[in-house]
Amino acid sequence: MAAKNIFYAQSGGVTAVINATACGVIESARRERRLGKVLAGRNGIIGALREELIDTSLETPTTIAGLKFTPSGAFGSCRYKLKTIEENRAEYRRLVDVFRAHDIGYFFYNGGGDSQDTAHKVSQISVELGFPITCIGIPKTVDNDLPLTDNCPGFGSVAKYVAISTMEAGFDVASMAESSTKVFVLEVMGRHGGWIAAAAGLAQGNRNEPPHVILFPEIAFDKRKFLKKVKETVARVGYCVIVASEGAQYKDGTFVADAGMKDAFGHTQLGGVAPTLVDLIKQAYGYKCHWSVADYLQRAARHIASATDVEQAYAVGKAAVEFALAGKNAVMPIIVRQKGKRYRWKIGEAPLNRVANVERKMPRSYISTDGYGITKSCKNYLSPLIEGEDTPPYKHGLPQYVRPKNKLVRKVLPAFKV
Amino acid sequence: MAAKNIFYAQSGGVTAVINATACGVIESARRERRLGKVLAGRNGIIGALREELIDTSLETPTTIAGLKFTPSGAFGSCRYKLKTIEENRAEYRRLVDVFRAHDIGYFFYNGGGDSQDTAHKVSQISVELGFPITCIGIPKTVDNDLPLTDNCPGFGSVAKYVAISTMEAGFDVASMAESSTKVFVLEVMGRHGGWIAAAAGLAQGNRNEPPHVILFPEIAFDKRKFLKKVKETVARVGYCVIVASEGAQYKDGTFVADAGMKDAFGHTQLGGVAPTLVDLIKQAYGYKCHWSVADYLQRAARHIASATDVEQAYAVGKAAVEFALAGKNAVMPIIVRQKGKRYRWKIGEAPLNRVANVERKMPRSYISTDGYGITKSCKNYLSPLIEGEDTPPYKHGLPQYVRPKNKLVRKVLPAFKV
Repeated sequence: MAAKNIFYAQSGGVTAVINATACGVIESARRERRLGKVLAGRNGIIGALREELIDTSLETPTTIAGLKFTPSGAFGSCRYKLKTIEENRAEYRRLVDVFRAHDIGYFFYNGGGDSQDTAHKVSQISVELGFPITCIGIPKTVDNDLPLTDNCPGFGSVAKYVAISTMEAGFDVASMAESSTKVFVLEVMGRHGGWIAAAAGLAQGNRNEPPHVILFPEIAFDKRKFLKKVKETVARVGYCVIVASEGAQYKDGTFVADAGMKDAFGHTQLGGVAPTLVDLIKQAYGYKCHWSVADYLQRAARHIASATDVEQAYAVGKAAVEFALAGKNAVMPIIVRQKGKRYRWKIGEAPLNRVANVERKMPRSYISTDGYGITKSCKNYLSPLIEGEDTPPYKHGLPQYVRPKNKLVRKVLPAFKV
Repeated sequence: MAAKNIFYAQSGGVTAVINATACGVIESARRERRLGKVLAGRNGIIGALREELIDTSLETPTTIAGLKFTPSGAFGSCRYKLKTIEENRAEYRRLVDVFRAHDIGYFFYNGGGDSQDTAHKVSQISVELGFPITCIGIPKTVDNDLPLTDNCPGFGSVAKYVAISTMEAGFDVASMAESSTKVFVLEVMGRHGGWIAAAAGLAQGNRNEPPHVILFPEIAFDKRKFLKKVKETVARVGYCVIVASEGAQYKDGTFVADAGMKDAFGHTQLGGVAPTLVDLIKQAYGYKCHWSVADYLQRAARHIASATDVEQAYAVGKAAVEFALAGKNAVMPIIVRQKGKRYRWKIGEAPLNRVANVERKMPRSYISTDGYGITKSCKNYLSPLIEGEDTPPYKHGLPQYVRPKNKLVRKVLPAFKV
């Protein structure tokens, strides 16, 4: 049997370490004579549908090794959700055509919840369309909301960025508070879950240290209680540092960010829970406030990635290759936390049908009673995930991130509209 | 003659390296028998007026050494501008009372333009009030707008943060652009000068790489031309990364950030050039956009400080002590760039009366002809300032920044209202 090629695609929002997973896949596959080339989808699954396949065998070992310290999705990612085979048979037939034309026997899909759903659907091709393909989902999401795995590659690094940024901004506000800024608000990602905001809590040594208030999507925003907490904190500590999930919301599900800001034309302003909170605080108390929206900076900050996260991201890529060779199908490697006081982890596996479309929320026991902080058990969970620094190489003061050539394999099929 | 004490104060917006300057002052003074203690103003000059003097001799050598890698102002800073002696003689008399009561013979003031003005005014005490005091200004400002010095301690680190963040976010947007975000806007500091925004240009290798558009306060914002540039960039590259000074302004001096956003009550919204630009772009072209406001994160980011900046910040602190011992008065140590291809610098000096209230703008020759980028000469100027990494020690994934005890000297004078 000729060695089959692997199709690998990056999907959904990218992270500081998804390329470390790509590195794990490609380096492991290159060592295996039983495997052919790794063909990466240009812009994820869209690349498979358009027959835009990047031939990673043309990249040097140095470039591939460099992926381990390069943020973002080196082959391009996408936000594109396949319908079911019943709803869009043409798309699945196209995938089979492309896979067959390029001798692809393995489908590796690297993404979050939606992506694992896609991977699961593709795994049904074998049965539904009679084309043999081995499907492995590979976990990736800054949101840390995949089930079964202890944590998600990508999360540890954003958590580290948020904890450090909160700590650093906290030091800044502390030194300015006497005659200037009294309140600082940092807005972080997390539309549905508070995992990222929770990580800010790692910066707090004792209750007088920042962050003084964390806003989670899981806890209904109560304006009066919040303002009271801010005032009480300023009175007690001299200043107040707030970290807010972009998904912070009122009891009725209205996002705090959507509550009122309008542009000159009367349109509701886009996002911005941080400026909205600052507006509330200024109107209530007149404090001088500063605010920051971390947005893409937080998930792209490879310069301050967690070494643990990088290692795990690489490991799930490597495991995907091992699973495929072991004949496993429709599974996803997961991170399993070992019992014991010292943090140790290993790779486990989960069936895709149990991963797809399940969203893991923060347990209530991880959030403090008043709803504005994290508990000791949450700290114990989060702390090992940000452990260790994995510094990229620098030249002239800048990280030397790599840009693969991304040369496409010659197309042999007619065009297909995506 | 008994060894006189030094009064040292941090002033204005803090930086990632102003404590490195404090470290330079204290470590150098501790080695000198001719000098007494370093008494630090609690919250800057306010501490002198309130007789709140931190006895730094009570801090361990380890804590003082730790200041070199701790961001923000460890003794507290302030925004407080002294009036002239004619306008507020009582304040100057108070300073003399406090200096005399605590045997202070040296006044070290660590800050930007306003602060150097204060240092200059205090230097006149000797003449005007007959109290002998040696005044040394010590440069510090992320804005890089002090005259005579080649650059300002604090700027190199914020420049490095902005260049790296732009690069990283640029990689992120590049991988998402096909099916998602097409435009990313990063808002950085610089109310009056474009130095910080300019630093983003260091991330650009060729004109297709981010940042594609930089908005400087020095170049009048032209909405039509800007939108055209964004559209042209998206068409050519597939996406567009914009870095905007908070001080970006229209020809008539109106800040872009102030142009229209209102809250639910009709009040003009605070700041936010990034969301304002995104609003313009979305209305013009409907592109999916993301935006980030770096705010305090950029100037507190000690974890990614420039080694050159840390070294220079320390050196100006050390030089202040040397100047004082050499009998110099009303001067400020400056950074002098040596001639030659390889970057080398040394400490020089400038009289405070030539520094106070002079603001250095970006030379027009540092900005590209179209006004949206930086020139080669600007890159040559900026590049050495971000050279080198100076990583703080880490424990459990977090930097081990120090918090001095900040114990106050016993007060001996009646209270004074500030």
